[in-house]
Amino acid sequence: MSLITLTTDFGSADWFVGTMKGVVAKINPIARIIDITHGIPPGDIRAGAFALMAACRFFPPKTIHVVVVDPGVGSSRAAIGVETSRFLFVGPDNGLLSWALRHERIKRIHRLENPKFFLPELSNTFHGRDLFAPVAAHLSRGVKLTELGAKQNNLIRLPWPEPRHFKDAIQGEVLYIDHFGNAITNISATDLANFDPAKLTVRVKGQTISGPSRSYQDCPSGVPAAIPSSSGFLEIAINAASAAAKLKLQIGTPVRAAGSVK
Amino acid sequence: MSLITLTTDFGSADWFVGTMKGVVAKINPIARIIDITHGIPPGDIRAGAFALMAACRFFPPKTIHVVVVDPGVGSSRAAIGVETSRFLFVGPDNGLLSWALRHERIKRIHRLENPKFFLPELSNTFHGRDLFAPVAAHLSRGVKLTELGAKQNNLIRLPWPEPRHFKDAIQGEVLYIDHFGNAITNISATDLANFDPAKLTVRVKGQTISGPSRSYQDCPSGVPAAIPSSSGFLEIAINAASAAAKLKLQIGTPVRAAGSVK
Amino acid sequence: MSLITLTTDFGSADWFVGTMKGVVAKINPIARIIDITHGIPPGDIRAGAFALMAACRFFPPKTIHVVVVDPGVGSSRAAIGVETSRFLFVGPDNGLLSWALRHERIKRIHRLENPKFFLPELSNTFHGRDLFAPVAAHLSRGVKLTELGAKQNNLIRLPWPEPRHFKDAIQGEVLYIDHFGNAITNISATDLANFDPAKLTVRVKGQTISGPSRSYQDCPSGVPAAIPSSSGFLEIAINAASAAAKLKLQIGTPVRAAGSVK
Repeated sequence: MSLITLTTDFGSADWFVGTMKGVVAKINPIARIIDITHGIPPGDIRAGAFALMAACRFFPPKTIHVVVVDPGVGSSRAAIGVETSRFLFVGPDNGLLSWALRHERIKRIHRLENPKFFLPELSNTFHGRDLFAPVAAHLSRGVKLTELGAKQNNLIRLPWPEPRHFKDAIQGEVLYIDHFGNAITNISATDLANFDPAKLTVRVKGQTISGPSRSYQDCPSGVPAAIPSSSGFLEIAINAASAAAKLKLQIGTPVRAAGSVK
Repeated sequence: MSLITLTTDFGSADWFVGTMKGVVAKINPIARIIDITHGIPPGDIRAGAFALMAACRFFPPKTIHVVVVDPGVGSSRAAIGVETSRFLFVGPDNGLLSWALRHERIKRIHRLENPKFFLPELSNTFHGRDLFAPVAAHLSRGVKLTELGAKQNNLIRLPWPEPRHFKDAIQGEVLYIDHFGNAITNISATDLANFDPAKLTVRVKGQTISGPSRSYQDCPSGVPAAIPSSSGFLEIAINAASAAAKLKLQIGTPVRAAGSVK
Repeated sequence: MSLITLTTDFGSADWFVGTMKGVVAKINPIARIIDITHGIPPGDIRAGAFALMAACRFFPPKTIHVVVVDPGVGSSRAAIGVETSRFLFVGPDNGLLSWALRHERIKRIHRLENPKFFLPELSNTFHGRDLFAPVAAHLSRGVKLTELGAKQNNLIRLPWPEPRHFKDAIQGEVLYIDHFGNAITNISATDLANFDPAKLTVRVKGQTISGPSRSYQDCPSGVPAAIPSSSGFLEIAINAASAAAKLKLQIGTPVRAAGSVK
């Protein structure tokens, strides 16, 4: 059974996502579809890239990840398919796939330009339905990526916001704010591996948070905490509250972890 | 494999949609269910009718479209099933199905009144669960529409808001506002076919928009544009912003396309 | 085919729910997953317990209900599986399962502690992905609950808010407010069975509502009504409006049904 995932900024109010699934079902009735999310803020390529990166590795090998956050739909931006050693990725060539691909071994990149695999009428405003869904459905039936269009040697990459490393500190920032108001930073578990956890402090918005906490409930109510999050990065959280709302955190808010090397 | 779609105003906060799916799975474990949307504004029959019309044709033949926007649930309004040359539609007889049916060849309409195909206990407030879901599940197993109840010769139809045609202009209105704030009008591609696109202007809320644009990104940022939308109608949009919010567009806002005949 | 349901407070903005489904698909590609809801307010164990209770019985026998509203994730709270005569329930032992279990015959309760059935890396913040999803997937493949961990004789139970019964009245409260703004109370159809419906009045927020209405549309527009809801409890509703917003109802708002015994 072929598995297709969908990650978009289409929301849930309209018929957009359902229609993409109809298109897939018409071409490959036994393809299975799993929504990663359709709640990416409209046009927010970075948020889409982060969500895909956080989720994609939890799916079975050969999963086809369809990702559509596509402010340039209908313009000259390319549509691409990327085959890696584990997965197939399908989406616009606007950086959206690039953070997930940092963790993949790319085998080939092809442009999606063969109209044989599109819907007969290609709109200029909804390639999710007219191009990406049918292409994914055909790929799930065994069509080869090489049949879709010309080979491309590279793809557009969003710069990854590396934290800056100092002798006794790491200077990072908030990368993503989730549904609970937890603020995920770009400071990874690896970045912190050399620091003594007992002496680590995290500074954000003028507050000093001591040592990473183990879980939400370990933290006194109302007090900001720094927790190794399930996405592999340090996260600013408040037990039973929204850290983002309470501390007025935003994407890009600076976060500094300071300590002493083990 | 049988395919059932769901379009409702039940939202996603509660257990309503999930319960409908449980009911279907209990009657037909191999029926496949695809959500078109559950984000229709509560009781908004026109929005539901538009969403169904925009989405239904993208599904495989024989799909059973279940649609529940049903302010009259438990009252004397009828529940109906409509078989067309392509699909089966199931829902309340309150106009909800009528816009999709403008594009279908109706073969028969039957009332859904045989309690053998309902849940044993029929509430007066949740026919989605107690009537429409089990009926759809039975239909997906091969029960004939004729077994469900008496034949009906017609159904309640929402008037379709035809734009008014003048010599050099078409007077329409906003029909639907989507998640991105794009305002879809009732002026169709066919309506505009006789106009010279190069000389077309669109007037809405005191603003004059020149010529239809090809895609969102073709439009300068912040400037309202008129774009042939993926639903087949002219759409008022702003690149990377909500046209509805910026121009204070609402359902019913007048939109006038003026030009010269080719 | 195995059926797994998901009920969580994870929302739909992020990749959390999609990732749980990827984990399930990786372990059991043919397991079917149905969302009950992911819109439980963050950390609201009572709302989660109510949604599960309202929905679970509509699913086929042997369904595996996975429920994750888990403010104590990563703390010392236990994770449990509960086998009843009809279903399997999987979730944190924090009361979340207890209202659904009031209507089930419990056969056994086991702790979920065998890491063989978890993801290899267990985070302290996302047991939905790392523990509950893989456990449910293994159970759906036939793993026995007894293999998951030690037997437990009881589970944490949320007190059920029984209404108080007086000679001519029942004093209850609002238990749940749904997407439409209907306020579901803890006064059940059974509680009201001895009262003469024609003489029943319901008092809430200083308003007196006469007799239970049959359906929403039976009620004059704008006038509060009391309706036997589809969840088996009396519900305060306003035809085509949000009763919760208009009457400022909240969870816990007192509701009094008074009448004379038949």
